[in-house]
Amino acid sequence: MRHEETGRIRVRSRVPITNREELSRAYTPGVAEDVRAVADDPARAHDLTVRRDAVAIVTDGSAVLGLGDVGPLAALPVMEGKAALLAELAGLNAWPLCVSSRDVDEVVRSVTDVATGFAAVNLEDVAAPRCFEITRRLQDALDVPVFHDDQHGTAIVVLAGLRTALDVAGKQLDDVRVVVSGAGAAGSAVTRLLQHAGAHDVTVCDSRGALGPDRHDLDGEKRWLAEQANPQGRAGTLTDVLRGADVFVGVSVSDLLDADDIAGMAGDAVVFALANPDPEVDPDAARSHAAVVATGRSDHPNQVNNVLAFPGVLRGLVDGQVHGLTPDLLVAAADAIAALVPPAERGPDRVLPDVFTDGLAEAVADAVTRTAT
Amino acid sequence: MRHEETGRIRVRSRVPITNREELSRAYTPGVAEDVRAVADDPARAHDLTVRRDAVAIVTDGSAVLGLGDVGPLAALPVMEGKAALLAELAGLNAWPLCVSSRDVDEVVRSVTDVATGFAAVNLEDVAAPRCFEITRRLQDALDVPVFHDDQHGTAIVVLAGLRTALDVAGKQLDDVRVVVSGAGAAGSAVTRLLQHAGAHDVTVCDSRGALGPDRHDLDGEKRWLAEQANPQGRAGTLTDVLRGADVFVGVSVSDLLDADDIAGMAGDAVVFALANPDPEVDPDAARSHAAVVATGRSDHPNQVNNVLAFPGVLRGLVDGQVHGLTPDLLVAAADAIAALVPPAERGPDRVLPDVFTDGLAEAVADAVTRTAT
Repeated sequence: MRHEETGRIRVRSRVPITNREELSRAYTPGVAEDVRAVADDPARAHDLTVRRDAVAIVTDGSAVLGLGDVGPLAALPVMEGKAALLAELAGLNAWPLCVSSRDVDEVVRSVTDVATGFAAVNLEDVAAPRCFEITRRLQDALDVPVFHDDQHGTAIVVLAGLRTALDVAGKQLDDVRVVVSGAGAAGSAVTRLLQHAGAHDVTVCDSRGALGPDRHDLDGEKRWLAEQANPQGRAGTLTDVLRGADVFVGVSVSDLLDADDIAGMAGDAVVFALANPDPEVDPDAARSHAAVVATGRSDHPNQVNNVLAFPGVLRGLVDGQVHGLTPDLLVAAADAIAALVPPAERGPDRVLPDVFTDGLAEAVADAVTRTAT
Repeated sequence: MRHEETGRIRVRSRVPITNREELSRAYTPGVAEDVRAVADDPARAHDLTVRRDAVAIVTDGSAVLGLGDVGPLAALPVMEGKAALLAELAGLNAWPLCVSSRDVDEVVRSVTDVATGFAAVNLEDVAAPRCFEITRRLQDALDVPVFHDDQHGTAIVVLAGLRTALDVAGKQLDDVRVVVSGAGAAGSAVTRLLQHAGAHDVTVCDSRGALGPDRHDLDGEKRWLAEQANPQGRAGTLTDVLRGADVFVGVSVSDLLDADDIAGMAGDAVVFALANPDPEVDPDAARSHAAVVATGRSDHPNQVNNVLAFPGVLRGLVDGQVHGLTPDLLVAAADAIAALVPPAERGPDRVLPDVFTDGLAEAVADAVTRTAT
């Protein structure tokens, strides 16, 4: 029937329903055969239902884009956009679940209750530190992977970009000194993944400066970062600890640094200034003092964009019927992205592939499923 | 990307995403404008998001088809089939939510938590009597309509069919004596709706016989039916109370009655024997003693099929931004269905329109939105 369509996604039937015979196959009594088959063997849901490719996109609307806590309804356009991308770029069936509760226990219980029909959960735009507990508890409660794009997606793409950027700068991840600005979902996940991938010296800063042994105002994830990262026990402001560092990764706020701060880094520095919409440092000013500069913006070279990762990662998790995310999976995804910029093509303005590179999602998905098995 | 598709539904993007410009409109930064608009005015979700047409299909898998308690995962094929029908017949975006909890409090809380992104909730295949409490409490908790097909859908189509069948039999709803077999979700809802539509004498039977003043084993909905229906205080077995009745509505189990039971009804009786897959009485045997016989089967005339109602009802609820179901809405939907069998076409083998009648869903939707405003 005719009606106005709104939003970014739609549900369609995969089967024709234009006469009684087709109706009886799509619905009763035909559907009873599939019900019996899944009741007898739950694994059959993988080949008989949409669950095979179904992803729940879950948010509480507490940290939406750079707009902050807009609530679950106003977050819906972002979740739809994400679902549209997963459909177009990875052939996934993703549907938004905008959760109205802000109680962690209740969010975990509600998402767990309705997760039966999904092969993966994509958490989106949930504020730190609540996102850490929700992610961890959902991962414990569910037998399907829980991917939090603001943590895992960002970490994958940052690692991918750093792999090639360090290659351009002639440095090795296990040799460099890294400073991360931002101790929220992204900063924490980036730090953990860089350490897993071999980085030995990562100092994380929040708005008060370096997280280290002199900081007695920390708990939870920040406490962990102060104790488990920053092996040299560095202290001071962001500007202080950045002096002499090889790599800056900013996942924080705009205009924290100026050209002099970048000039004070080690030679051939790598600067990933990813705050949105405006980077931590003016990218043009930074470029005159660094070997590679990347931002989150599409109007500058080297856009660090989670779209490079999440369609392929979720496709791989679903195809591999993966039960849980591991750091090795995330590293494999990052390496697959980096491999799409062959060494001969790498340069100061080319450390990441284009989002529309042929075979990108397939390559990432393959890396994820191969690593999982 | 290429991949095997499974199940009965899919999610597709409504917008093209093939280059950077389209990507920035579908997702960030373009989506931020819609987020701000909805944050400023939640009513904008109606024209800016998929919520306008979005229906949550909720089940706990406790009473699936005639197969019983198969659980939430095995119920998924039915929910997908329903979503496929809603897409094809009413252009709705419906997604299955298979709830794993059996605790009524938790089911209500979980569905309420994730209902933000939906304009209606369609409860499906939830066992009685739990379905009554879940329906009522969700209706109280949500500002969107909660439609339970096994209650409301069945009641609408039964009323529609009885309107025309009584016309064929030359009787009036407010004059006839009705016996309903089955005191579950369908039997209760049919009885309530028939009474709302003008029937004065409805006796409901469960497996022990008529619900009336002599029954001291009843509580909840059955207690209500014993007290509020059956004004004559009839007692006895189904066969006892059926004697002399004008209308039989069976929403119970197969092979409860034989031809003699139908012969003992009033002249020009109307028999709706809707148990699946086999009716309460052999329809061919019943036909020799009744003016009209209807079943749930597609291989007999007069199929009482909820597909006649639910696509149009949900379309109307969503289009009208209706907050709650009312009995008047259900009656209006039934009358719209009955009106599609014009008086000149009505006959013993034609009391309901075909499921694929042009304009069926539109007519039902119009009736619902008109009645709601």
